[in-house]
Amino acid sequence: MSDEVLTVLAEWTVAEATEEIRRNAEDTQDLYVVFVIDSSKHLQGFVTIRRLLLSPAEATIGDIMRTDVRYVTTDVDQEEVARTMERYDLVSLAVVDDEQRLVGHVAIDDAMDVIREEAEEDYQRLSGITGDEEPTDSVFRITRGRLPWLFLGMIGAVFAGSVIGVYEENIRRASVLAAFIPVVMAMAGNAGIQSSAIIVQGLASGEVWSANMFRRLGKELLVAIVNGLALAMMMLVVVLLLFGWLATVWSSVVTPAPEPTRLAVTAGLSLFAVIVLAAGIGVATPLMLDRIGVDPALATGPFITTSNDIIGLIVFFMLATTLYLPFV
Amino acid sequence: MSDEVLTVLAEWTVAEATEEIRRNAEDTQDLYVVFVIDSSKHLQGFVTIRRLLLSPAEATIGDIMRTDVRYVTTDVDQEEVARTMERYDLVSLAVVDDEQRLVGHVAIDDAMDVIREEAEEDYQRLSGITGDEEPTDSVFRITRGRLPWLFLGMIGAVFAGSVIGVYEENIRRASVLAAFIPVVMAMAGNAGIQSSAIIVQGLASGEVWSANMFRRLGKELLVAIVNGLALAMMMLVVVLLLFGWLATVWSSVVTPAPEPTRLAVTAGLSLFAVIVLAAGIGVATPLMLDRIGVDPALATGPFITTSNDIIGLIVFFMLATTLYLPFV
Repeated sequence: MSDEVLTVLAEWTVAEATEEIRRNAEDTQDLYVVFVIDSSKHLQGFVTIRRLLLSPAEATIGDIMRTDVRYVTTDVDQEEVARTMERYDLVSLAVVDDEQRLVGHVAIDDAMDVIREEAEEDYQRLSGITGDEEPTDSVFRITRGRLPWLFLGMIGAVFAGSVIGVYEENIRRASVLAAFIPVVMAMAGNAGIQSSAIIVQGLASGEVWSANMFRRLGKELLVAIVNGLALAMMMLVVVLLLFGWLATVWSSVVTPAPEPTRLAVTAGLSLFAVIVLAAGIGVATPLMLDRIGVDPALATGPFITTSNDIIGLIVFFMLATTLYLPFV
Repeated sequence: MSDEVLTVLAEWTVAEATEEIRRNAEDTQDLYVVFVIDSSKHLQGFVTIRRLLLSPAEATIGDIMRTDVRYVTTDVDQEEVARTMERYDLVSLAVVDDEQRLVGHVAIDDAMDVIREEAEEDYQRLSGITGDEEPTDSVFRITRGRLPWLFLGMIGAVFAGSVIGVYEENIRRASVLAAFIPVVMAMAGNAGIQSSAIIVQGLASGEVWSANMFRRLGKELLVAIVNGLALAMMMLVVVLLLFGWLATVWSSVVTPAPEPTRLAVTAGLSLFAVIVLAAGIGVATPLMLDRIGVDPALATGPFITTSNDIIGLIVFFMLATTLYLPFV
């Protein structure tokens, strides 16, 4: 916000207002709108410079001003300010205190910088970078912004590793199960990020309100069910081809697995369950963070991926233990 | 771009220019700048409405106009247009054809929309969403934008699974190795995304040029070495504690691994190698895509993660085969 804001009074004529602008010539290089206030500084309206130019010199500001003036209070955060200016195509937005007195204004170019910066920040958070990294930052500063997420990611991955550790005996008995770990992790991560990204973006642009929460959740789950079914079918076919057909004709390349059909069903069912669960977590986490007042952008990227990895692996090994292991 | 652009001639007076604006009153609601052209429509300069207001009615446009007018040609892409307006704080940018004739202008609010849209698109690509998804899109349209990436991710994960399949015999002999798969995958993915995100963002804002390629690569590798060393040391300690100390005092919880020190060194070394390699791939991929004219934003997210997963697993199993397996 800039507190150098040019104001005029409603009872002034166009000629007087123009004279005021001329007197402040050096401060008003990029002036497109002047705000109209009363004697106690309360915001009354605004006049565009174009309107001043086209109005007769003797007209009063009160006659030509527009009273549908948009404003924000000083406690509104900068992202909300930028969003308001974007939505109503404003070049200058009035800022008032809690008694409606004009204290400054925000110019469009500042709002544009805010939009760019907020977008960059969200992008970096999604990539697991805290703070705001610039290409010119020192190695120390860059490391400080990245190591915390890598560290948290490692802690999460150690937990995911522990899940596998719990099922170590199963892997020893059916080592083919280990080959499915990357598939489960990749799909859980990707499906979760897709869902959470849309929610985070919707929250940032003000398009998703908490009231819509259950509708959004429903739509994401429907998308996840369609995607999950499609990928589960493909996975089923891939496993049948690899461990059924290919393993019988070319056993030097693929170690044959016993019960390939059971393995394929287990893999397909796990994939479906993991994708739907991941989408649910991807939607619910940012929505809930937003409700309790935490920036939902923090939840995307490494955080969602890590929790989905762990949950995905638990689901996979539980299904494998029930559907596959007892039969091999 | 809007081709409804109000123009004036340099020989007109301020009064004549004002009359022209008045005649086009309904088209000029949001007018802040008028462009000055000659009789064959070549762009000569611009005058702000403020300048018109403050100048005497009999002054000529040629006297008060500014000739340092910024413009773009019709073939410049919208992101570059928005970036130019942002950099020079313009509210209106002239668009000329290849003979310097004014054909239109871009208003600041359109540029702001472009910045928001491009940022949203990059964010969605990083999340593995192709196209431009809106919350109001149908389930079919959303699925079409997401399934391709999930599918490619699954193909990649099947390859990663094949890497594990190749080392299946090793896993049967030392099933503890499977527990490290999530750590390797998570770290390879995270470190790669962090590096590539910064490069993609730098390329988008014009801060990274190909000429800087080797300097950027060097800086990222330095950051990766610092992060890699820190995390490798932590991993080493974690493995020693878990499989050395904890396994001896509480073997009902942790299955003791033979040669815990060798296992810890293997894990630490793998983590370091994987993080440095992932950072290198994360930097090199978007820079090379940019050089050959492909949008580098396509390379981030699922693509970088998947390739790093595969390379990370290969590195881990190669090191484990050399440093750990022969001794257990």
